[in-house]
Amino acid sequence: MALVLGVDPGLTRCGYGLVAGSKAIEYGMFQSDKTDDPTKRVGKIALELETLITKHQPALIALERVFAQSNLRSVMGVAQISGALMAIAFERSIPVEFFTPSEVKAAVAGHGRASKDQVGQMVGRLLGLKEVPKPADVADALAVALCAQNKSQIASTPAKKKWVAAEKAAKQKLG
Amino acid sequence: MALVLGVDPGLTRCGYGLVAGSKAIEYGMFQSDKTDDPTKRVGKIALELETLITKHQPALIALERVFAQSNLRSVMGVAQISGALMAIAFERSIPVEFFTPSEVKAAVAGHGRASKDQVGQMVGRLLGLKEVPKPADVADALAVALCAQNKSQIASTPAKKKWVAAEKAAKQKLG
Repeated sequence: MALVLGVDPGLTRCGYGLVAGSKAIEYGMFQSDKTDDPTKRVGKIALELETLITKHQPALIALERVFAQSNLRSVMGVAQISGALMAIAFERSIPVEFFTPSEVKAAVAGHGRASKDQVGQMVGRLLGLKEVPKPADVADALAVALCAQNKSQIASTPAKKKWVAAEKAAKQKLG
Repeated sequence: MALVLGVDPGLTRCGYGLVAGSKAIEYGMFQSDKTDDPTKRVGKIALELETLITKHQPALIALERVFAQSNLRSVMGVAQISGALMAIAFERSIPVEFFTPSEVKAAVAGHGRASKDQVGQMVGRLLGLKEVPKPADVADALAVALCAQNKSQIASTPAKKKWVAAEKAAKQKLG
């Protein structure tokens, strides 16, 4: 089954989630210290992402597409981490796909305007987790991985089928 | 003498210039194809920067600080390349310093509002080049390297002295 790594890139908090079908393999968050030198902040998170990728060898890396509404400073942090991650992926020939926030929300919660809470709850349910993954950076990383499984041309068909079934069951439960 | 790598990061054109004292060791530009996948674009330029850094082992990498006046798309490209470069530098324990555009202009042309042409001409003169380095991305990369030599705490004192002398001579010529 294709392993998908979803990342919610950021300089202060970088969420990640490895998903295979309806199973969460590993998830969490890398952080950097705001008082550190910018190069150390980017470098530390890039090294942690690199170690994770080397360990799990995902078939696909999925990211959310950044939009103009954010402020420049946070966009720059997101883009710096994304750039480092894209370089790591390219070196290993791992494809990277981008999804819009509304694609991600629609994929996990059924509609593109779902709240952060709804996304977190649906992610927990789809992956059979005992608790809603927190903080939102982690839930978002898992959500974009689930979205990629559903939407990507690259993710394998068996994983996709399992996911579609899990999604259907979870949505019926939520009513 | 400390070798300084100046970079004018960009996704379409990424200028670079290696400077030691008043000598340009190597300079040029990496490019990526606008029609390519973003990951390939970032990855290709990051690999080229990595090869350059591995070959020359600079003591310092100097970049221009990005400001809000640019449009989001170009800021994102700049930040993606910068992020990949920062990760490469951090892995090799090479310090990265940022300078504002007016610091760079002031350092090479004597005042912070110098035109692109003036920067290019002064860079050519300070480094004793037969032609003004072109395009502007290359001249800007050399300019930020020269600025770093002048302003950095890290660049070695002998290089700094040579540079100050070269700067003085060049400015006298320009009148």
